[in-house]
Formats: sequence, structure tokens, C-alpha cells
Amino acid sequence: MAGLAPPTQIISAVTATRPMVEALFDELRGATLDHPGVTRAPYGEGEAFAHAMLARKARALGYEVSHDLALNTYVTLPGRDRSAPVLMTGSHLDSVPHGGNYDGAAGVVAGLAALQALRALCPQPERDVTVMAIRAEESVWFQVSYVGSRGAFGILPPAALDSATRIDSGRSLASHMADQGADVAALREGRRHLDPARIASFVELHIEQAPSLLEAGRPIAVGTGIPGNFRYPDITISGEQAHVGLPRRFRRDAALAGADFATGMDRIWEEHEAAGIPMATTIGRFHTDAALHGMTSVPGRFLMSLDVRAYDEAVLAALERRVLTMVAEIESRRGVRFDLGARASAPVGPVAPLVRECLERQAIAHGLDWQPLGSPASHDAATFAAMGVPMGMVFVRNANGSHNPDEAMDIDDLMAGITILAGWMLESATASTAG
Amino acid sequence: MAGLAPPTQIISAVTATRPMVEALFDELRGATLDHPGVTRAPYGEGEAFAHAMLARKARALGYEVSHDLALNTYVTLPGRDRSAPVLMTGSHLDSVPHGGNYDGAAGVVAGLAALQALRALCPQPERDVTVMAIRAEESVWFQVSYVGSRGAFGILPPAALDSATRIDSGRSLASHMADQGADVAALREGRRHLDPARIASFVELHIEQAPSLLEAGRPIAVGTGIPGNFRYPDITISGEQAHVGLPRRFRRDAALAGADFATGMDRIWEEHEAAGIPMATTIGRFHTDAALHGMTSVPGRFLMSLDVRAYDEAVLAALERRVLTMVAEIESRRGVRFDLGARASAPVGPVAPLVRECLERQAIAHGLDWQPLGSPASHDAATFAAMGVPMGMVFVRNANGSHNPDEAMDIDDLMAGITILAGWMLESATASTAG
Repeated sequence: MAGLAPPTQIISAVTATRPMVEALFDELRGATLDHPGVTRAPYGEGEAFAHAMLARKARALGYEVSHDLALNTYVTLPGRDRSAPVLMTGSHLDSVPHGGNYDGAAGVVAGLAALQALRALCPQPERDVTVMAIRAEESVWFQVSYVGSRGAFGILPPAALDSATRIDSGRSLASHMADQGADVAALREGRRHLDPARIASFVELHIEQAPSLLEAGRPIAVGTGIPGNFRYPDITISGEQAHVGLPRRFRRDAALAGADFATGMDRIWEEHEAAGIPMATTIGRFHTDAALHGMTSVPGRFLMSLDVRAYDEAVLAALERRVLTMVAEIESRRGVRFDLGARASAPVGPVAPLVRECLERQAIAHGLDWQPLGSPASHDAATFAAMGVPMGMVFVRNANGSHNPDEAMDIDDLMAGITILAGWMLESATASTAG
Repeated sequence: MAGLAPPTQIISAVTATRPMVEALFDELRGATLDHPGVTRAPYGEGEAFAHAMLARKARALGYEVSHDLALNTYVTLPGRDRSAPVLMTGSHLDSVPHGGNYDGAAGVVAGLAALQALRALCPQPERDVTVMAIRAEESVWFQVSYVGSRGAFGILPPAALDSATRIDSGRSLASHMADQGADVAALREGRRHLDPARIASFVELHIEQAPSLLEAGRPIAVGTGIPGNFRYPDITISGEQAHVGLPRRFRRDAALAGADFATGMDRIWEEHEAAGIPMATTIGRFHTDAALHGMTSVPGRFLMSLDVRAYDEAVLAALERRVLTMVAEIESRRGVRFDLGARASAPVGPVAPLVRECLERQAIAHGLDWQPLGSPASHDAATFAAMGVPMGMVFVRNANGSHNPDEAMDIDDLMAGITILAGWMLESATASTAG
């Protein structure tokens, strides 16, 4: 690391970007306001504005700007060796309906600010450094995750293009993409824009979607992993609808079976927490059948969803075995039957140790108050990890959660995140690309 | 008991009523068929037919027939001392929509058959013996219980007359009663037809609504009590709707709080069962808020009903204290708030020891395979007990539960019940009324 700019120089270069950072957020909020909050629908007007704004600003600053088949935007500071694997950072520019201004956009604006700081200290790094603004990350719209990042790698399932419809319009993903000018035919064929072998590493900065940093009083965290999951969106428990007079030994109460399952999942989580193994389990839908409701009826039918996530494939596999064992135990004890329905899953997105160490080194070198943190949610960075790209994450403190108009990030905290990104770029992009 | 007819004579007098019993059930089923099952709506056509059929048959047999303000029907065999407290038996003639032919009607038909057997052995007992056919017992129609029996005693709350509407018509109880010719104005004033001081005792025969006798292989049971209850029809649990990424320690999951509550109530029942204290707890409605459903949302709102029943007021009171303690514990542990909403309750209907002993004596004297049994459900007999009338119950084995078209009582089993009723009438109505 000999020859690198000292921390004080990085901090002053980062501080110089603050007016641009604030101006970009203000412009973005102003143009995508949808009271309460902002709305930037994927392959819709708000998202398109955000990409156009970024491209305009980046061109004005003298960067190379390009797009891919799925209309992701790339802002590049060219390096000395243009054939060397590129250093990438970025996040998504779409939002949930009536969401906050920072979920996603913070990572793109931070990337551009870090690029400015890098260029101020090192106008021509050894390799290209690229900020990627990603399309369509929020799965609430199409019920499909990672549309933009998977599209860039040519791995978006063709079925998603036609069968996924946007909640507001009812029109297909393919139709919304074509509207904006995406090359749907090429995506359908799996043509790829990004080659994993040509990416040195990818770092995503994102606001934290849980209050861990708020509680800990720290502005910043370095990600330790993105959770994988397994999901059963439509579990049905069948027992026997019965009269309130039915004695306990004869009852086959489907709702009590559901209650046993939920408290059982919660105990499993509690155990893992005590053992220091991060995981989460969420039952978002949990209900008797409204058509059969009666105060003096024993419920014969119960419906629920299940989402289980963890940072280790072996932990996920063991959790799923426990789910199935618990189901069998409840079935036999309560005389009910579980129909688990369809199963979905997403692989764990592991953080690359060398990327993580570099980000931690930057946090320490700049005297930041940081901590390691498992990502509470899913992120496009998981797509890069799944493609074999060394991946890392930076989280910024945020109040009131995400996916709502009340999310609240402090720009001071974001500047700390930009400092880490700029330090990582400087360290990683100025090393020799020989070999 | 000197001078009573020997058991063999009672059995032969009861056996002689079997053709009448079968004919009455056939006529009733034929006239109130509503595929699947029968429908005899309270203060509606089917119920009116049943009362008219009973009155016609009873008059043909030479009994006194009368009605009260609420249109309950009374069939009386006059006794020697007409001022002595009367011996009463009976049950209701309404049914649930698409219910079975025996729920309620079995007790009325059995009463008339027992009266026939009594008269065959003792044409003029010491006191009047009356079979009462009761109106509007099934609370599914008006969400009001014991309309007919409470009306007979002048204790039907006036509010129920106007605010209770029938599920099928949407019209008020008062309007349906007036249609059939009831004296609604007198009921509103609380005028009474039955004077508790003028009733020696009341026995209700009813099909069992749980499968205890079926499991035990016994045709008949003598009731040990009718449960009282407390109910919270509309409990709301408020937590905080949150993102799936929220760590366990921050979650205020309303559905998990509901699950804790349900499994807690089930454990309390299990404990009572182990200790031999009869009770029941039913949560018929148990659900997240459909408007807020999302597979990756932590439920912030949960809704449920609660019905708790037991045969002892002290047990009920202790149960309610445990409910409140458990609620406070869950509130504090899960960071949620329970709003219990409105509370309703019904007092325990205690069986009079002397009536129970007499019924048991008859079962033994006639060599029946019987057992004691706490009523699994509520019955009009509880109204008599609440008015201070010595009350007893007889249950007849029944398959497939009640309140559905598949209820299945064997007429042989009913004849055993009629034998007990006839023996009780003979023992109780032929004793001297001196004093």
C-alpha cells in the first residue's frame, strides 16, 4: 500500500463531494415525489428519471457512460490497463411505492462521490473503476428479484419476462422493459453484458433496513454476508372443523397446529441466536379461513407463509430438515396434515474475505466507528457473488426501517460510507494489474 | 319408592311408544328437509311446523296443550294436585341451517314418549307432568342464546328483541316473533309465564354433541353439569408491521403473540385435563390482517376470538385470571398490546344432586350401560338452573357430532334415554305432594 494517499487526503477529497451528493438527492426526491415518499417504479418513469439524471451528471463530470441490454447504467473512470478486470460498485435506483429516497439510490450516489474522490487523488488508476446503477431490484413490483443485475449477467429466467406482471399496471415485465427500450429478445436468449471474469470485485453500499446500527450508535457497518433463503409461500394445514363441545382428545385443531409451528420456529430462532448463528424466520400470513369463522367452531383449516433465511447453506439445509421434522411431529400430535405447497429458494450471497478485510481496513484507517453486520435483507450484490465475483457490502445507519417514506439516513453517516468506498477504490484500483 | 311399577313394566311401556317415536321423527324430517339435512329456523317455517305437529299429536292423545308469550308449547298430563309444583322435561325444536333431525327434537319426542309410558302405568300422577317444546335455542341464527326458555321466564333482555337480527333475513328477533304471533310487548315488559317456584324439577334429554359415548361404547349418560363460559369475541393484538430484515430482538410480531396465547391456552387445558378438572377453550377466529399480508412482512396486527367454558364458577374465575396474567406476560415479552374488546359470559348450569341421583338410579334399575358426563355444550336446561329450578340432563350417544346433516343417533339408544325419563317421572310424580 506504499504510495497511497494518506487518510486525511481521502477524507478531504470525500468531503468535497458533499454538495454534489446533497444536490443529487434533492433533484431525485423532487422529480420522483409521490406523497408520502417517492415512487420509482422499475422500468417506469421515476426509475428512468434517476438513470437519466445520473448519466447527465456523469457525462458532465467527464466520465464514460454506457448502458446494457437491461438498461442498467454504467459510469466509468478509465484505468491505465483497460483490459484488466474492472472494480465495480453500485446499487439500484428503483424504489417501492411511496418508499424512501435513499433505499438503493444511496449506493449509486455514494459510488459516484467515491469515484470523484478517487479521481481527485488519482486521475488514472491502474484499472477501470465503474459505478453501476441497477434496474428493478424491488421485488414488490414484479415479484421477481434482481431483474437488473441478473439481466446484466444474462441469467434472468425467460419465464419471468412474460409471466411476471407489475402490481400497478398488470402488464408483463417484458412489456415494461420494451417500453423503455430494453433489448428483450437478447435478454430472452441469455445474452450477457457483464463477464464475471472481467470484474475484479463488486461492493454495494446500502442503507441498513434494520435498526442494529441505530441501536449500537454506529454510523457504518461492513457486511459479512447476504442471506440465502427457502420459502413456502402457501402452506395449508388441514384438521377437522368441529363444534366447541368436542373434547380436547378428539380435536384436530388446524389453527393450534399453526400456533405450534410458529412458536416452534421462534424457538429455533432463539436457539440459533443464543448460539451466535445468524438466521431469521418470518410468517407474514398466518390465518384461519374467513369463510369458516365461528366463535364456537374448532378451526379445520389454517393458512400461512414461511420465509427462512440464513448466511450459510449448511445452516439453511439444517433448518429445512428441522422444519420438516417439526411438521411431522405436529401432524402426528394434533391429527392434522400440512400441505407445504410450492417451495422457492435463493442461495446465500457470501462476502469475499479479501474484500471484507479491505473495507474493514479502510474503516479503521479513517477512524470510523464501525462494526461487522450480516445483511438483514437481499441485495443485487448477491447476484455478483452467485456469479463468482468477489463481493463486499457497506451498510449506512438508517432510522425507521426501509420500504417506507419515513426512512431516515443522515448525510454525515453516508459520507463515512463514501470514505470507505473511496479508500477501497484507491487501494484496489491503484495496485498493479500485472499478470 | 314402595308401590312403583317394577322395571320390566316400565321397559314394556316405553317399548310400546317406539312406533310413535319413529313416526314423529319421520314426519318432522319429511316436512323440514333442506338438502343436505333439515332446517328449522327459530320463529320460522320449520320450527312452526314442529310445534304444530307436537300440539296436534298431543291433543289427539288427550293431553292438555298450551302456549306461552314466546310461543313455547306445553303438553301436560294433569296430576291429582294441580297446585303442586310441576315436573317438567323438554328441549328445543329449532335446528341450525342444514342441521340434523335429532338435535333438540330428540328431547321433545322422548318427553312425549315418556309421558305416554307414565300414563300407561299411572293414569293420574300426584302432580302435573309437562313436556315443554322450546323455541329458538340455536344461537347461530340471532347470536342470542336461550330465546325461548328465557322468554318463558320473562328474562329475555329487551335489547335482544330489537338488536338481534336473523342471519338469513336480516330482520329483528322481535319482527320474526311477531310474525308467528308471539306477544312481543309482554316479553319486552318481562312478563313471565313460568314461575320457578311452581316447577319441581326440569330434565332435558339431548343428543351428545361430542363423541365421548361413541368412544366409550355406551348408549346413554347422566349429565353432571352445563358449562358456564366467558368469551372475548373480538381480541386485537397490536405489534409493529416490519420488514423481514428486522432482527428478532426488535420485532413486535403480533401473530407470534397470538400463537403464544393459543398454545398457552392449550397448555392450561392440558393441565386441567391431567388434574381431572373439566373445561374447554376454543379460538375459532385466529388470523393476521389480510389487508397487510406479505410474505416478507412481520405481522403488526392479529385478530382472534376466545371462548372458555367450565362447570364451576371458581374454575372459570381462576381461568380468566390466568388469561389476563398470560396476556400481560406476552405483552411484555413480545412488545405488543392486547385489546380484549367486549366480554360476554354465561353462568354455570349446575345439575341438582337429587335430580342427578334419581336419573342415575333409573339407569341402574333398568340395567343400562351408562356413565356420568359433563355437557359439552350449552342447553336451555341452564336457564332453568339459573332460575333456581332443580335441573338434570340425559345424553344420548350420537355419531358425527351435531349442527350438521350427518349427526346419527340410534333409536335404540334413544329408547334407553326414554326409559330413564319415564322412570324419573314415575318416581318423582307419584310421590306424595303433601306439604
